[in-house]
Amino acid sequence: MSDQVFIANFKDHIGKEVTVKGWLYNQRSKGKIQFLQVRDGSGIVQAVLGKGDVPDDLFARCDHLPQESSIVVRGVVREDKRAPGGYEMSVKHVEIVQESQPYPIALKEHGVDFLLEHRHLWLRSRKTHAILRIRARIIKAIRDFLDNDGFVLIDAPIFTPAACEGTTTLFAVDYFDEKAYLSQSGQLYMEAAAMAFGKVYCFGPAFRAEKSKTRRHLMEFWMVEPEIAYGTLEDVMQCEERMICYIVACVLKDCRKDLEVLERDIAKLEKIKAPFPRISYDESLKILAEKGNALPWGQDFGAPHEEILCNMHDNPLFVTRFPAAFKAFYMKPDPSDEKYVLGADLLAPEGYGEIIGGGQREDSLERLEKKIAENKLPSEAFSWYLDLRRYGSVPHAGFGIGVERTTTWICGIHHIRETIPFPRMLERIYP
Amino acid sequence: MSDQVFIANFKDHIGKEVTVKGWLYNQRSKGKIQFLQVRDGSGIVQAVLGKGDVPDDLFARCDHLPQESSIVVRGVVREDKRAPGGYEMSVKHVEIVQESQPYPIALKEHGVDFLLEHRHLWLRSRKTHAILRIRARIIKAIRDFLDNDGFVLIDAPIFTPAACEGTTTLFAVDYFDEKAYLSQSGQLYMEAAAMAFGKVYCFGPAFRAEKSKTRRHLMEFWMVEPEIAYGTLEDVMQCEERMICYIVACVLKDCRKDLEVLERDIAKLEKIKAPFPRISYDESLKILAEKGNALPWGQDFGAPHEEILCNMHDNPLFVTRFPAAFKAFYMKPDPSDEKYVLGADLLAPEGYGEIIGGGQREDSLERLEKKIAENKLPSEAFSWYLDLRRYGSVPHAGFGIGVERTTTWICGIHHIRETIPFPRMLERIYP
Repeated sequence: MSDQVFIANFKDHIGKEVTVKGWLYNQRSKGKIQFLQVRDGSGIVQAVLGKGDVPDDLFARCDHLPQESSIVVRGVVREDKRAPGGYEMSVKHVEIVQESQPYPIALKEHGVDFLLEHRHLWLRSRKTHAILRIRARIIKAIRDFLDNDGFVLIDAPIFTPAACEGTTTLFAVDYFDEKAYLSQSGQLYMEAAAMAFGKVYCFGPAFRAEKSKTRRHLMEFWMVEPEIAYGTLEDVMQCEERMICYIVACVLKDCRKDLEVLERDIAKLEKIKAPFPRISYDESLKILAEKGNALPWGQDFGAPHEEILCNMHDNPLFVTRFPAAFKAFYMKPDPSDEKYVLGADLLAPEGYGEIIGGGQREDSLERLEKKIAENKLPSEAFSWYLDLRRYGSVPHAGFGIGVERTTTWICGIHHIRETIPFPRMLERIYP
Repeated sequence: MSDQVFIANFKDHIGKEVTVKGWLYNQRSKGKIQFLQVRDGSGIVQAVLGKGDVPDDLFARCDHLPQESSIVVRGVVREDKRAPGGYEMSVKHVEIVQESQPYPIALKEHGVDFLLEHRHLWLRSRKTHAILRIRARIIKAIRDFLDNDGFVLIDAPIFTPAACEGTTTLFAVDYFDEKAYLSQSGQLYMEAAAMAFGKVYCFGPAFRAEKSKTRRHLMEFWMVEPEIAYGTLEDVMQCEERMICYIVACVLKDCRKDLEVLERDIAKLEKIKAPFPRISYDESLKILAEKGNALPWGQDFGAPHEEILCNMHDNPLFVTRFPAAFKAFYMKPDPSDEKYVLGADLLAPEGYGEIIGGGQREDSLERLEKKIAENKLPSEAFSWYLDLRRYGSVPHAGFGIGVERTTTWICGIHHIRETIPFPRMLERIYP
């Protein structure tokens, strides 16, 4: 690959002869001239091939080459504002590596079931490319933000002996002679790690066996869970704000072309700026009632409620002070009124809804033991977790941010399934 | 936390009054003066408390405070070469957040079973700290190296419909009405992704249900799998060399104190330098026979064989041209002699053995179909994988590097279980 140049790096090779190794994305002919659109994974370039540039039989073969045939093209890079991508190549040599069989995904619309069944090929499309590049940039932004902010990466285990928030939505695994469950959150482990390292995060896949088919759910998704010893709800909310602003800034800086491919309204992303508005759960209920979507106190939001609330602001919206009743056992009650917990969800704007859940954790041994008993959770399984309140308990707080939900919002697309390379859904584990 | 300062940042606060929020690591008294060793996750500092600095009853309490009690200490930072860590604090104020129950892990030796059972607390020890900080640095180095080298992160799925290399070592999951398996490698998915993005990698947990109890095996471990379209065995070997050199350089630069805590022989790491020596499988057999550890041709190395080979060099050692017989079905045979495959393993020095396996993949549809049939693999499950050879097949190659094995070697420690925050072993999924 010594003289291979990636299309993304063409700006450094203008006027030079280079080799591109890729696939035929599209082709059109104008008599003695052929325009081969070649993609190499980093971009697409138009390679201009004139009759006489290559032997006649090769020229003829190129004229009927199926889409996605693998080809190596050698030629001179030319800047051309009119060309898609801004560059053209004047071809001097073509090597057909493999003539593809007729490609199942033509450059036209297909049903989503067909595309999901061919996800291994659908990955090659421009839109999928744009989304997954943005996903990779978001992940890098999150990691860089946390690493530079003094957080230590501590990977949480995937195999866990017990449920974090109940067992109904867990996938069970036969672990030799025991039963194990796939983690749906690394949070409890991050609490242990925060007591050791101060500021920590885990970043890995999480699993929820929810029989739901909404456009916001996956069975397998990626989550980042920072946890801060001696941190408060206010600390994590400020950390979330800074992180979201950093993510958006990175994507705007490095992925502008990808956003354009997705026809994203970039102006909306450019408006994201800390501090984010805050609203309490009780205030939310008033607004929802005014907007004709009343919810009884003590019930959790559904997607329509979140949509109404987050559509009211350009920025993400914090909803705070939820009723303890429908929040997890480990959340710390608000000392000023124990009906509420010291938690906050962050809802993305433009109707995208929750992307982060966070809050302060119960740090009292006695109260936590009571909660575990009330929730009828298997107390032996939580014995180690209770140890964290026996040996130097401290106030602490954290949050979890969903990678795919964040990507869906930033990309401005409809369905979460396109934001992960190989989506796992209720009726899909193939390919 | 507005005025909280982390011990790791003390160099910027010499002579200033700061607040440290942490835990009591150790304590000793000399009459009217107490030396409190306080750890805050980022480091350990000696806080010097004189009688009269705080109220008498608080001074008396501090004198009997159990290890790991949570305390907030306010005082002035002083440079002191004799102090462990290089700094001291002259305490002006102490707040005891929680008096710990008697701490089960005293500052003495414990058996490993006891420590593993208390992993959530063991995380707080100095040695564990050093290892997991190095682990985090290695992970960051790998990601930075690949991101800067034009690779796109494409997360492979964890739930898979079929086995990559046979089903005997797979964990099975009930996936609603289907059976799914936990991924033991993302490679096949990376091959699909490389055809779309050119250069890709996945980085996630992998699972092997091997009933093995060696010091080199975990049931759940983290793996990085880069894949390069149009890449050859030579390309991936050079990529591996550059990556390993980069990882070692980052750890030497940023984790010197951690290496010292582990009493790592740093000179050995400083010798790591590309190019790495290479030896063929057949040559290896000759050496093994000479050293009294003969192995019949066609059998894979065991740990003792790897140990002999990698002890012969300061650098990691490539072993190439393995017999096809014991390598995976997707490996490309060496065109010059099809008994061998175009693969290479990288063995870490100092007896640590294999940390990377890699090679070129079979790119011919016909040959791959034959291999799948010969290996009696479920061909429907591989239908999508075969598509990659139908639609623009290209030569391609990749490798997989194990995070924990690499960390074990770089830390210079004996057992892999200490290199992951919550190890999952044959008889351990707790805590």
